[in-house]
Amino acid sequence: MNKGIFITFEGIEGSGKTTQGKLLAEKLKKEGFPVLYTYEPGDTEAGKHIREILLNSEIKITPLCELLLYVADRIQHIEEKIKPHLEAGFIVICDRFTDSTVVYQGYARGISIDLIEKLNKELFSELMPDLTVLLDCSASIGLGRNKKVNKKDRFEMENLSFHEKVREGYLELARINKERFFVLDATEPINVITEKIYKKVKSIIECRS
Amino acid sequence: MNKGIFITFEGIEGSGKTTQGKLLAEKLKKEGFPVLYTYEPGDTEAGKHIREILLNSEIKITPLCELLLYVADRIQHIEEKIKPHLEAGFIVICDRFTDSTVVYQGYARGISIDLIEKLNKELFSELMPDLTVLLDCSASIGLGRNKKVNKKDRFEMENLSFHEKVREGYLELARINKERFFVLDATEPINVITEKIYKKVKSIIECRS
Repeated sequence: MNKGIFITFEGIEGSGKTTQGKLLAEKLKKEGFPVLYTYEPGDTEAGKHIREILLNSEIKITPLCELLLYVADRIQHIEEKIKPHLEAGFIVICDRFTDSTVVYQGYARGISIDLIEKLNKELFSELMPDLTVLLDCSASIGLGRNKKVNKKDRFEMENLSFHEKVREGYLELARINKERFFVLDATEPINVITEKIYKKVKSIIECRS
Repeated sequence: MNKGIFITFEGIEGSGKTTQGKLLAEKLKKEGFPVLYTYEPGDTEAGKHIREILLNSEIKITPLCELLLYVADRIQHIEEKIKPHLEAGFIVICDRFTDSTVVYQGYARGISIDLIEKLNKELFSELMPDLTVLLDCSASIGLGRNKKVNKKDRFEMENLSFHEKVREGYLELARINKERFFVLDATEPINVITEKIYKKVKSIIECRS
């Protein structure tokens, strides 16, 4: 049992999950809560190196190698940052976690979901998010928001149907894990979404205290 | 069922496994066999980047992250190099494979061997070596041979008792997997060892043809 609260943000590219995760972190910090805002992949020193391999589309990696690199990054992230902060009573807000792996590598890339879930169970089962905020929108809206002028990474190079599979995967996970998922319409105004997330998180904090 | 033959070389640092693996590859090539000599970690483009993280002792990684990085490297290595060559009928000679992970990360670093074996089973069970050559010597002899003047990697920085655990782990694996392991005294003269390995491999080639 962790003393802290573990909140993950999930969604397709351009869904606004990073913006909302950071806004929540700021709001809670201002109220005096101890907060760690973090992300996957790449928020440790080893993770930065792993992230470079993962996102550099010029390095050839198979889907299974990609999966294992995400898992390696996550293990380091949990042991170095997430777990110690939860044990110290922090609210840990994490941009992407195991659900990303299930939908991107499983639903979208086609790796056996059974295999991914076995790995998750063996390696991460003791660390389940208390809340997973899913910002849902269609792939065309998400990608439209996320247009970059320069070089694109491995996922930004994928086509619309890949990102639609990711969206469908997320919605499926939300149906299966109702008690943990909080699904929001990512096309609503930013401040409306922020307020809904804030209220939900406050209700969890109150239940705990 | 592979058309080729898969031979792995194992042993502690300084046991001579790299020298012997290369000598075997040369000898078989000269006789006209199609041979791939390869190694872990790092013998693919992605693997080179992974190897840099693994061996750079200045980057902090937990034992479990180390394990997963080896696994990621191996997946890429199998899918990109080992499997296609075996399917094309090559004799694939690989310096270190799954046994290294069991002894270094399991026996020596203390990660649950049960967990490592579960991962191996899920990910690599379809690719078992036809022969594993274990070059056995004490850690003090191996490390004595392997003295480097310059910067040492993550494993070369470990003490004698770490490498003794590795040796013991290898001998234990050889006892459990008698049908696959070929254990040799690494203190014998190089040419004597080379000849013994060569004869063993030729007997496997003859059985196959």
